[in-house]
Amino acid sequence: MTDAVDRKEVDTRCRIVAQAERFFRTFGYQKTTVADIAKALKMSPANVYRFFDSKKSINEAVGLQLMGEVEAALLAIADSDAPAPDRVARFARTMHEMNASRYVTDRMMHEMVAVALDESWSIVRGHIERVDAMMTRIVADGIAAGDFTVDDPQQASRCLRAGLIKFCHPQIISQCAAGDPGPDVDTMVRFLMRGLGYRGS
Amino acid sequence: MTDAVDRKEVDTRCRIVAQAERFFRTFGYQKTTVADIAKALKMSPANVYRFFDSKKSINEAVGLQLMGEVEAALLAIADSDAPAPDRVARFARTMHEMNASRYVTDRMMHEMVAVALDESWSIVRGHIERVDAMMTRIVADGIAAGDFTVDDPQQASRCLRAGLIKFCHPQIISQCAAGDPGPDVDTMVRFLMRGLGYRGS
Repeated sequence: MTDAVDRKEVDTRCRIVAQAERFFRTFGYQKTTVADIAKALKMSPANVYRFFDSKKSINEAVGLQLMGEVEAALLAIADSDAPAPDRVARFARTMHEMNASRYVTDRMMHEMVAVALDESWSIVRGHIERVDAMMTRIVADGIAAGDFTVDDPQQASRCLRAGLIKFCHPQIISQCAAGDPGPDVDTMVRFLMRGLGYRGS
Repeated sequence: MTDAVDRKEVDTRCRIVAQAERFFRTFGYQKTTVADIAKALKMSPANVYRFFDSKKSINEAVGLQLMGEVEAALLAIADSDAPAPDRVARFARTMHEMNASRYVTDRMMHEMVAVALDESWSIVRGHIERVDAMMTRIVADGIAAGDFTVDDPQQASRCLRAGLIKFCHPQIISQCAAGDPGPDVDTMVRFLMRGLGYRGS
């Protein structure tokens, strides 16, 4: 296969994913069919099936792309030179804001998220593990710099992530928007940072 | 109305709730009708509607009863003489175990929980507020005894509860059962107690 053909294949795949996302967002996951996506792109359903064997696979590709954008933003924070406590706070706030805008503001996205959580857990788990790895790196930096006093950066970062579920998990963000008497993300981060042994404010 | 009639009314209401719970558990919320519940109790649907104006109201009564059992167990822990850090740990573990056994082991209960979270948030919110109030009391005791160093027991207990969502929220317990690389409840409680300023182990 030549490079030009390769590029065309990648391009077609991207167009399918982008079109699927638009339809999921506008009409919902259940009401969108592979035939709808194919028609909008002026191609045959058979051509879509050359790239994705099922609507579930398309959903996974859409999910990977949305989660990938969040991961790119988080990676920039994890890699920055800021002190670890600042990075933890920005990391949490960014995760909260991006997940809220991606999955929650848009009522139609709930269906897509629910299907992904139910049928494609390994995809979600991959995202969680990549986020955990970035957080572990920040926590380890904070331990090295004397900001945090925990022993095990991996375990601590998993506790940190678990403690942020209210602010990161699409279904929970959405339920809490209905009126949860809980803390806001900055208050929660300060609380969790004390869990890391941080003595600053 | 005489006491005997009152008692009979209360008894009928209880039987409707108990029968509804059995059906929700066995056949699922969606597939159970008010007519099914009435028939099993050898009464007319109209008689069921004298007590509950909709299936949603029956669901709320079932939910209140299930949550009430959890609250009773938690209240016994909140009221006990044990040191606050021990009570926090038992409180979290009990909440986790009771919610897991009530809502998660039983696949059919998911539907009921999803409907309640979606349509009856005020009922769920009431439960959250009662749990928060018990936790606030334990945290305040811990501050008074010098175990915890936080200033605001209410805000701290809300952070504590938010930090335990992974272990208490039926949908999250169920998703995590599919394989989440996170901490177990005891590790998480130790982490969160450091957030309260606890220096013990």
